[in-house]
Amino acid sequence: MEKLTTLGYYNGAYGPLEEMTVPMNDRVCYFGDGVYEAAYVANYNIFTLDDHIDRMYRSAALVEIEIAQTKEEMKAILRDLVTKVESPNQLLYWQVTRGTAMRNHVYPDPAVPANFWVTIKPLPVKNAYQKVKLITADDTRFFHCNIKTLNLLINCMVSEKAKRAGCDEAVLHRGDRVTECAHSNVSILKDGALCTAPTDNLILPGITRAHLIANCKKLGIPVIEEPFTLDDLRNADEVLISSSTAFVRSASEIDGTPVGGKAPELLKKIQDAMRQEFIDATGIAPSEVPDKA
Amino acid sequence: MEKLTTLGYYNGAYGPLEEMTVPMNDRVCYFGDGVYEAAYVANYNIFTLDDHIDRMYRSAALVEIEIAQTKEEMKAILRDLVTKVESPNQLLYWQVTRGTAMRNHVYPDPAVPANFWVTIKPLPVKNAYQKVKLITADDTRFFHCNIKTLNLLINCMVSEKAKRAGCDEAVLHRGDRVTECAHSNVSILKDGALCTAPTDNLILPGITRAHLIANCKKLGIPVIEEPFTLDDLRNADEVLISSSTAFVRSASEIDGTPVGGKAPELLKKIQDAMRQEFIDATGIAPSEVPDKA
Repeated sequence: MEKLTTLGYYNGAYGPLEEMTVPMNDRVCYFGDGVYEAAYVANYNIFTLDDHIDRMYRSAALVEIEIAQTKEEMKAILRDLVTKVESPNQLLYWQVTRGTAMRNHVYPDPAVPANFWVTIKPLPVKNAYQKVKLITADDTRFFHCNIKTLNLLINCMVSEKAKRAGCDEAVLHRGDRVTECAHSNVSILKDGALCTAPTDNLILPGITRAHLIANCKKLGIPVIEEPFTLDDLRNADEVLISSSTAFVRSASEIDGTPVGGKAPELLKKIQDAMRQEFIDATGIAPSEVPDKA
Repeated sequence: MEKLTTLGYYNGAYGPLEEMTVPMNDRVCYFGDGVYEAAYVANYNIFTLDDHIDRMYRSAALVEIEIAQTKEEMKAILRDLVTKVESPNQLLYWQVTRGTAMRNHVYPDPAVPANFWVTIKPLPVKNAYQKVKLITADDTRFFHCNIKTLNLLINCMVSEKAKRAGCDEAVLHRGDRVTECAHSNVSILKDGALCTAPTDNLILPGITRAHLIANCKKLGIPVIEEPFTLDDLRNADEVLISSSTAFVRSASEIDGTPVGGKAPELLKKIQDAMRQEFIDATGIAPSEVPDKA
């Protein structure tokens, strides 16, 4: 069968993503009632798949969505679907929603099964060393940021704000405390140590963040999991932005003011370790050429 | 043409709601990126339609969604659609979402039009005097509750919590301050006055709430728009729950403890005025018979 350029999958049916439809009464349409994951696919290998699967089941449990598949079944479906797409390097995205039923805030009958969605699009492997520009913005989101839900309107709004400022990401803060970014975690290097916010209900327990911590520990770099402030951010030796699709990047400016750049060797050591982990898992070397704008 | 039992409408196409589908790439599916309204239809008259239309355009403006229709066009579509449904008494629900595009947090190209959705289902006109039971719950939602967005997962979770406790609604509070309910506003009667939270970013400016205030003023009842506490709620003469589909109801208990019932005559005066307004607008008298469970 001919391979697809993009793929959309919904409860067993699939086709080109742009042509796929879903029931109007899927609860995602009225409530954003679901949880999701996104992972990098390189050379048809889904990077850190087990981590993503584990987090999806944790997210679903926290909002009491019972996923219809076992973890092994879900992994098998995902592994099969990535082979149906032309490009070997992809963004794999999947979500589970709380079934299809007439709109009602309370949950549908437990017999109504959750819906399973997958989308795949080509994604060239990104540069692991690219610098990013940041803005800061008030974190006005809910108090369930540890759950990867589909209630993302505010994340969209601050992402758009960053884009309009000519930046790549928005660093959010509650009062003086830095939480995370619109779709990444943020950490800092200071005096040879990695400082990163603890995984409470204000940040997503990022998988790249977890691998960043593990790699730092392997390299003998102290890791401090404590809240840090906007001042700490602005005065950091390096500011690190981590996400499943863009590795660990460092920031060159925040709100138009230069930031970081004071520990380039330590930064490169960490980025090299993250890059090597990706190469070992996928066989693909992230480019060292800056991404196109 | 034969009338429908339920109706779903999406960008001009319509049919039985249960059979309608929407594109997987509608941004609602990934982000809950849209705003909505719901109104009571009695005798094919859409109650307080202008209020709902105005609020929808305000909500859309606050999240920078440009609605493709003018207000008059939207009203004409809604008025036409309600005639296509068998039951003259309906729940009319509609939403606008930020277009259809490949998933990306930043907004799509401005040329991508917003999507317009409508759903209609039969809804018997409810009893205007029914008592309700409440639970209290922490308000852990975002700080944009003045916007009627489709990011409603937490509202669903607390509604389900109320249902499991054998109750009808959950009263939310931030610390000691009462904000609103999962899908209603809450006000109290105390010493002959109506006390209701001000319309800041923590509550939805409810249309029934606004009519409640207007009716109280017409009746010479003082209206105090100031935050009130959980203690105020528990010690109120009456606790009032208002929503577009259930008028102004009063609570008989909160967290299993009796509440209110200390100003039944004042309560009835207000409820009679609200009921009369509904009768004048729709020609339909809300039942005085308690709703079925």
